[in-house]
Amino acid sequence: MNAILRLTCRDCRGIVAAVTNFITRNNGNIVNLDQYTDPAAGQFFMRLEWDLAGFKLPRSRISAALQKFGKIAVSFSDQKKRAAIFVSKYDHCLYDLLLRSKSGELNCDITAVISNHEDLRYVAETFGQEFYCLPDNEKKQLALLKAKKADLLILARYMQILSPKFIRAYPHKIINVHHSFLPAFKGAKPYHQAYQRGVKIIGATAHFATEDLDQGPIIQQNVAQISHRDTVEDLITRGRDLERQVLSEAVRYFLNDRLFVCGQRTIIL
Amino acid sequence: MNAILRLTCRDCRGIVAAVTNFITRNNGNIVNLDQYTDPAAGQFFMRLEWDLAGFKLPRSRISAALQKFGKIAVSFSDQKKRAAIFVSKYDHCLYDLLLRSKSGELNCDITAVISNHEDLRYVAETFGQEFYCLPDNEKKQLALLKAKKADLLILARYMQILSPKFIRAYPHKIINVHHSFLPAFKGAKPYHQAYQRGVKIIGATAHFATEDLDQGPIIQQNVAQISHRDTVEDLITRGRDLERQVLSEAVRYFLNDRLFVCGQRTIIL
Amino acid sequence: MNAILRLTCRDCRGIVAAVTNFITRNNGNIVNLDQYTDPAAGQFFMRLEWDLAGFKLPRSRISAALQKFGKIAVSFSDQKKRAAIFVSKYDHCLYDLLLRSKSGELNCDITAVISNHEDLRYVAETFGQEFYCLPDNEKKQLALLKAKKADLLILARYMQILSPKFIRAYPHKIINVHHSFLPAFKGAKPYHQAYQRGVKIIGATAHFATEDLDQGPIIQQNVAQISHRDTVEDLITRGRDLERQVLSEAVRYFLNDRLFVCGQRTIIL
Amino acid sequence: MNAILRLTCRDCRGIVAAVTNFITRNNGNIVNLDQYTDPAAGQFFMRLEWDLAGFKLPRSRISAALQKFGKIAVSFSDQKKRAAIFVSKYDHCLYDLLLRSKSGELNCDITAVISNHEDLRYVAETFGQEFYCLPDNEKKQLALLKAKKADLLILARYMQILSPKFIRAYPHKIINVHHSFLPAFKGAKPYHQAYQRGVKIIGATAHFATEDLDQGPIIQQNVAQISHRDTVEDLITRGRDLERQVLSEAVRYFLNDRLFVCGQRTIIL
Repeated sequence: MNAILRLTCRDCRGIVAAVTNFITRNNGNIVNLDQYTDPAAGQFFMRLEWDLAGFKLPRSRISAALQKFGKIAVSFSDQKKRAAIFVSKYDHCLYDLLLRSKSGELNCDITAVISNHEDLRYVAETFGQEFYCLPDNEKKQLALLKAKKADLLILARYMQILSPKFIRAYPHKIINVHHSFLPAFKGAKPYHQAYQRGVKIIGATAHFATEDLDQGPIIQQNVAQISHRDTVEDLITRGRDLERQVLSEAVRYFLNDRLFVCGQRTIIL
Repeated sequence: MNAILRLTCRDCRGIVAAVTNFITRNNGNIVNLDQYTDPAAGQFFMRLEWDLAGFKLPRSRISAALQKFGKIAVSFSDQKKRAAIFVSKYDHCLYDLLLRSKSGELNCDITAVISNHEDLRYVAETFGQEFYCLPDNEKKQLALLKAKKADLLILARYMQILSPKFIRAYPHKIINVHHSFLPAFKGAKPYHQAYQRGVKIIGATAHFATEDLDQGPIIQQNVAQISHRDTVEDLITRGRDLERQVLSEAVRYFLNDRLFVCGQRTIIL
Repeated sequence: MNAILRLTCRDCRGIVAAVTNFITRNNGNIVNLDQYTDPAAGQFFMRLEWDLAGFKLPRSRISAALQKFGKIAVSFSDQKKRAAIFVSKYDHCLYDLLLRSKSGELNCDITAVISNHEDLRYVAETFGQEFYCLPDNEKKQLALLKAKKADLLILARYMQILSPKFIRAYPHKIINVHHSFLPAFKGAKPYHQAYQRGVKIIGATAHFATEDLDQGPIIQQNVAQISHRDTVEDLITRGRDLERQVLSEAVRYFLNDRLFVCGQRTIIL
Repeated sequence: MNAILRLTCRDCRGIVAAVTNFITRNNGNIVNLDQYTDPAAGQFFMRLEWDLAGFKLPRSRISAALQKFGKIAVSFSDQKKRAAIFVSKYDHCLYDLLLRSKSGELNCDITAVISNHEDLRYVAETFGQEFYCLPDNEKKQLALLKAKKADLLILARYMQILSPKFIRAYPHKIINVHHSFLPAFKGAKPYHQAYQRGVKIIGATAHFATEDLDQGPIIQQNVAQISHRDTVEDLITRGRDLERQVLSEAVRYFLNDRLFVCGQRTIIL
């Protein structure tokens, strides 16, 4: 069983040695280490994973002991994160997440499927998930998320803009999928926009939701070549594959503690 | 030896039969036929290639005979188009076009390399091409193009905005490459813009130059995945491969008589 | 409502004109035409789609009237093909096909899900499909397929080799997915083979099943970049996305009457 | 100015801490660290880059001081590697390498272009490179390489099989490009093989040359979608782009000290 440290701090000489020393002195065996220094921000980011077999510190004291190094988060490979999925009427991303969760691809517990419509209740319930229809009621949603101890909110084609207050309650913990290769075609009906503009490539983007619509830090993007023969309907169909793919990959990065944010950019270690 | 007909007309019943009949009655053997009807515009587009061996009409009378069908252009596989290349200081697209021309990939004669700087004279001359340094002088450029009978103008990272008058002289005959996946990152320094925005994919776009900068009909696009580790310099380096690729593919479509324009969209048959 | 003609014949002068004439004389409006002549085989392939509104021939007589042109197949856009899906224990391709069918991406009726195991009965039944567990009994399978009037058999990770007799009963009507980019890694455990060989790309291939295992005409292939960090388990996970994708695209080509076979190659019009 | 350590050893507890400590105690600032443990081989691989400003050890003593940690190689960012390019008659990979070298993409000195034919002398000489035509004379080739102190041999479509003795003289220092997605289509005329098999994807592979033809550890692969319309000649044309790309990327990995070999697999850190 492994522990994973995510560390962010000002870049400073000796930080890698200091942290790896700490792990080694406590008899931890490092199994993965990746780091990055952002040159513009002067920020240092590290993801360090070590085997806890024989580690001298008890779990409960690891976080406190590491805080001297900077802003940290510690997780354990046997503790699943808790994800809530927000949906409206499109079912493809929901099915995809539920199937990937079922197959073991996504290391999380899905604690709730929340919607502003009843349409997808049967999908959630087929997979044994609790479904909550809470339209226009962020207060109830937030209460539910708190009760469910959600670590991550996944907006799986949720067609409702969240309030700034809601978003601030889960900073860098809300992953949205937008159906274009951002920053192109922000806002409504991006496939129609793409068709009108005559692009030869369409895309999808998974990003952290922030108060600025479709402008949060981008986590993952993917594209597909199209031709003049593709109608808007064709773009929507092909785009579903892209949306599924980028959303599930972004979620997997999050669940594997690989995501850091540096200004408007994400660092994936 | 083949003839190639490019036909655009209002969509109407029987047009395919009428044209193919005409070819067959004149003893032509159709070797390629592709067509497309744009549903919104109600326009019909056809590219038809036939073997001229045994064809009853002499070459000189083919165009006139086909004009009854709509707006047409006829070319012959043994007549190379004449391309002029515009460059400034970046050499990668110029080298690429010259090498592809030399290897026989591009079925054209390069009639002139035109620049607003002297820097790339040696490149053109190494390949035996005439080089003209004509900065800020569209009048001389147009005269040269006329003298050289240029069919196609290729802006191979030409860092100078053409006047509307210049562009109107070569409608849908000027191919530009822009170093972003348009419509994202129009204008100056797109790789810097891409870095700032934190995208995970960069791209390049070949398009027809029109009076609206970076807004002409898109011919070809390509992209590459990048990561947070890539600096602006890395994006520029990786982008060069994309620029080369999309520009040469767009030029090849043009030279093979495969390009049609329908509003802001290109049709590639 | 449209009719679609698929025609294969020896390449001969005038064939396009002859067929398009026939359609036009009978008052059909051609909406799509694509053709290809294989240079080595001297075979001509054409897919022609026309609007039946106002067509003079009744549906029932169209096939007979077209037979003079070569080997033909005629279908109608309002007649769904009937597909049977074969599965064993892996559920990802089955779910994918059922979901795409449900969303209208695949223009077919699924007539039966057939398996050599009981494991996936609940999946089929959740989607309202009939499930038949018929292990080691090709006779019963063939009887069922006949009763169900299956036009297409989809082997969605069916882990059982079909007999030559079975395959001959559905020539070029059985689509299989193999989890490698064929011809690399034929046979068992291709992801393990790929890991051992240290490739940097994995793939999946949809092909017509023939009597030679994994050697039938290839319909669609797709690949993904991998790294040394990916374990065999990771390859299996990532490969599932590729398998889903190539199988569904191959099936869509089939259902849209776009597939032709020329020796060991497929033509997609 | 940076130093780069490449370390390979048995995986053992504390190795990361030990090495990073050593660097930090000597006042080095780590700017990049990546490591990988191969689970099957039990081997540990690390690439560590640190800023030498203020480093206490003189350059000349760094290697000796690090040898206690395992099998090591140390290089310095201001010392360019020395590459020899082998060619025959195809010029596309040669041009590509010379152009990328000229543009600063490849951090190396090209010490010689060696060939078994005179054909490409003018290409090398246009770029100011020495050209040696040494057909069927490995002895002279080896003497030249020794005199030129070559660190890396690049087989840029060199159409001559090297003897085992030659290859053993440069273990994991010879990079070859093969024009297929290995292991498919080993040996001669892979594009013809690909055409015959009817694949929908072609590829190219850069790999270390070993005594087993086309079977050395793969460094980089890339692919392109093709269609039934592509002739063998088209595959050759499109393949040139893939060959250029994978070869230059593999060379860049080598020059940046990112390549390790573990059995038949490469590790890229």
